[in-house]
Amino acid sequence: MKNPKTLSHVDQDGRANMVDVTEKSVTQRFASASGYVQMQPATLHMISRGQHAKGDVFAVSRIAGIQAAKKCADLIPLCHPLMLSKVQVDFSVDTQLQRVNISATCKLAGKTGVEMEALTAVSVAALTLFDMCKAVDPEMVIGEIKVDRKSGGKTGDWVRSESN
Amino acid sequence: MKNPKTLSHVDQDGRANMVDVTEKSVTQRFASASGYVQMQPATLHMISRGQHAKGDVFAVSRIAGIQAAKKCADLIPLCHPLMLSKVQVDFSVDTQLQRVNISATCKLAGKTGVEMEALTAVSVAALTLFDMCKAVDPEMVIGEIKVDRKSGGKTGDWVRSESN
Amino acid sequence: MKNPKTLSHVDQDGRANMVDVTEKSVTQRFASASGYVQMQPATLHMISRGQHAKGDVFAVSRIAGIQAAKKCADLIPLCHPLMLSKVQVDFSVDTQLQRVNISATCKLAGKTGVEMEALTAVSVAALTLFDMCKAVDPEMVIGEIKVDRKSGGKTGDWVRSESN
Amino acid sequence: MKNPKTLSHVDQDGRANMVDVTEKSVTQRFASASGYVQMQPATLHMISRGQHAKGDVFAVSRIAGIQAAKKCADLIPLCHPLMLSKVQVDFSVDTQLQRVNISATCKLAGKTGVEMEALTAVSVAALTLFDMCKAVDPEMVIGEIKVDRKSGGKTGDWVRSESN
Amino acid sequence: MKNPKTLSHVDQDGRANMVDVTEKSVTQRFASASGYVQMQPATLHMISRGQHAKGDVFAVSRIAGIQAAKKCADLIPLCHPLMLSKVQVDFSVDTQLQRVNISATCKLAGKTGVEMEALTAVSVAALTLFDMCKAVDPEMVIGEIKVDRKSGGKTGDWVRSESN
Amino acid sequence: MKNPKTLSHVDQDGRANMVDVTEKSVTQRFASASGYVQMQPATLHMISRGQHAKGDVFAVSRIAGIQAAKKCADLIPLCHPLMLSKVQVDFSVDTQLQRVNISATCKLAGKTGVEMEALTAVSVAALTLFDMCKAVDPEMVIGEIKVDRKSGGKTGDWVRSESN
Repeated sequence: MKNPKTLSHVDQDGRANMVDVTEKSVTQRFASASGYVQMQPATLHMISRGQHAKGDVFAVSRIAGIQAAKKCADLIPLCHPLMLSKVQVDFSVDTQLQRVNISATCKLAGKTGVEMEALTAVSVAALTLFDMCKAVDPEMVIGEIKVDRKSGGKTGDWVRSESN
Repeated sequence: MKNPKTLSHVDQDGRANMVDVTEKSVTQRFASASGYVQMQPATLHMISRGQHAKGDVFAVSRIAGIQAAKKCADLIPLCHPLMLSKVQVDFSVDTQLQRVNISATCKLAGKTGVEMEALTAVSVAALTLFDMCKAVDPEMVIGEIKVDRKSGGKTGDWVRSESN
Repeated sequence: MKNPKTLSHVDQDGRANMVDVTEKSVTQRFASASGYVQMQPATLHMISRGQHAKGDVFAVSRIAGIQAAKKCADLIPLCHPLMLSKVQVDFSVDTQLQRVNISATCKLAGKTGVEMEALTAVSVAALTLFDMCKAVDPEMVIGEIKVDRKSGGKTGDWVRSESN
Repeated sequence: MKNPKTLSHVDQDGRANMVDVTEKSVTQRFASASGYVQMQPATLHMISRGQHAKGDVFAVSRIAGIQAAKKCADLIPLCHPLMLSKVQVDFSVDTQLQRVNISATCKLAGKTGVEMEALTAVSVAALTLFDMCKAVDPEMVIGEIKVDRKSGGKTGDWVRSESN
Repeated sequence: MKNPKTLSHVDQDGRANMVDVTEKSVTQRFASASGYVQMQPATLHMISRGQHAKGDVFAVSRIAGIQAAKKCADLIPLCHPLMLSKVQVDFSVDTQLQRVNISATCKLAGKTGVEMEALTAVSVAALTLFDMCKAVDPEMVIGEIKVDRKSGGKTGDWVRSESN
Repeated sequence: MKNPKTLSHVDQDGRANMVDVTEKSVTQRFASASGYVQMQPATLHMISRGQHAKGDVFAVSRIAGIQAAKKCADLIPLCHPLMLSKVQVDFSVDTQLQRVNISATCKLAGKTGVEMEALTAVSVAALTLFDMCKAVDPEMVIGEIKVDRKSGGKTGDWVRSESN
């Protein structure tokens, strides 16, 4: 994908600009994003060992991520309101890198891409995980939140290049 | 700070648990958090060169971050509702590392810490910056969102250790 | 309607699952739900006798119910956001059973049923009625909130069986 | 508790009236409320047998209830905004009566009672449980939502009378 | 009241600035604001003649105004979240000037003034009145929304000067 | 446009009524609205002289207006939820009349008009401007909020008559 010469979200005078999608056609949109929360081994162990504890810690973060995806247009000023047809949030524990990896996918039959919704789901799921563990591990770091794939619309399929 | 043995946000049976702060005393709370959005040099140049353009890109992200801090209890399920007395969001451009650094500070005279509010402000300011630049640079990465300092409450002053 | 073997809202590993409706076709959806608030005869008399008083008590509850139907996806985590084309909330006073009966109907041309929206409208209208009368009658009971009819989608017309 | 002669939430002309609590003193408030979702034995079995499935079904409903308590003033027009210091939502399965019993307790150091918050938590937890099971059991009934106990404020301790 | 030399809501570099009220003392705050909706005589007659119709048109607008006051910090980016202890919205019909006059008062024991809350209540009550009458009278005008009085805080009592 | 004989938003018994748009066809909708904030010359000068200051004052108000348009159905009880495809908010300084003029346009491919969204954008942008300047000029007046043009739907093109 070539870079356009101008930012779509500010006009020629630098003013905030919500892109006009009135005439855009409705297509099936998909986007996936990911990120992680880095934590101490003991913290990671604490939330992932028992079935019981694990249930609620990840369940609460998952719900927070799903709910946040639906609130994206309320959180990000120039996002269009839209009606997500699917939000999924998944977690995997990487004991090697001492991280909980978070991924989210969003779907929509609509006029705009849904990568901001997927990124928002990952971000808020990460914040919720942070909130639930901060009493035992205040130095956690939320990292590498990025778009991995998207499809639909004029751009068509897009996959993140490997080097990034 | 020693690690407690248990997570405060799940009870002994692993169920989500909102901490009871009814009896806690009201003290002056402060927290600062930071993070960054990594982008291509051309993108960084585009949003930081002109006074005009810069105005709105950062102004929109700042407002989004401030508003998000106020919505923290709505986004993060086990956070307590609270009445922030101050939210500040700042940006600095690091052309060396090709990043926009974002920092946020929150204040409150209340019963709970405000680090989640500061982290939420940074996260949503970063997402908004991403949204405004994604048409020219879809491979941006949001990174290293973390708490830098906090004070108030039983814990007292806390500063992130350098090695992290 | 036969019972499916599995819950649609948790996946095979028991994790919360928002149903994917991307490929579903848009049909006209309708749902009606009902419930009641049981109260002391004196309370019922107080809110239903005069035209004046009646106006605002029921008007406030009606508005609360309509507004809540629109917020359904924000309240119920796995509900899809949707654009209701009609919400109606009605009240009738049953002096025999000492109840205010509440019913709500919702309509949509969309991909998902709207029974949760109708149930939410009834619930919040009932809560609002409770709030307005609680100073005189704190022992009120909200009861029998249920779906009465729904149509549209793959299931087609569905009417609650009499015995329930 | 004697019944007052007038409704506090409508003025003498029947107009909606938000009670003025400016001069009220701040006391420790507590309220508990309960209700149930009645369902088919097979449904009850499905959500309560396995540890895994149970985890998320009840976890999602619990989170929805907690979040709803925090939104009470947004849902119920004449409720005052307030800063809950604790919300707890619990479930118990009654296989005899074929019900999931839901209870919620709310706490606050503030100027108004929190029974509407507890009732809202129960209602929305019940609606969420309904949403998650409706595909297998559309004839569920949400019932007997009521205040069980409250304390604090001018009224002091109040316990629901047994006969109700 | 003398004009300060600088805007409190932008810093010296022109960046949006939420005023820090952490150290401010809690005092009793009061503010009243007003405005009107100008309409055709026939429209005014239609909403004010019958007791019945009048009930709901003004009841809906009143509720919308009260609810909006509670959402002020969500609508106006640099407003502080606060816990209003009282909101009142009143209407009076002026057949001479062909207007519905709207007034709102807000109260709070807190650290910030509540004039923005009162102005927001008037504005949204006016918009709701407009919405309910727009099918018969699309040329209505909402006018003269202003603060009339405020008290509390460092400024003390303030009354709008007559000439304005 | 002829005036209908009855209000669409109350039924024959005077009860609040959300118009049923289920069967309406989807057409391209457009609406523009305007209003102003009247202020002292010194205030006007303060917010419009420097590029820097101007940036954020108007940027914040613009964002507030755009965000409010998206929240219209949450603010105005009988408005339908809808998915705006474009919101634009503009400001112009009139030093002669000592006003900041505000205009907003909204677009949608949908079943309902978007004039309430445009009016809401103008109103909240005006309130935000008021908030940012109130410390230096508490006697500002928000005035003449009205619909200027709309198109789409059964009514077709509509332009405000000049005399109003």
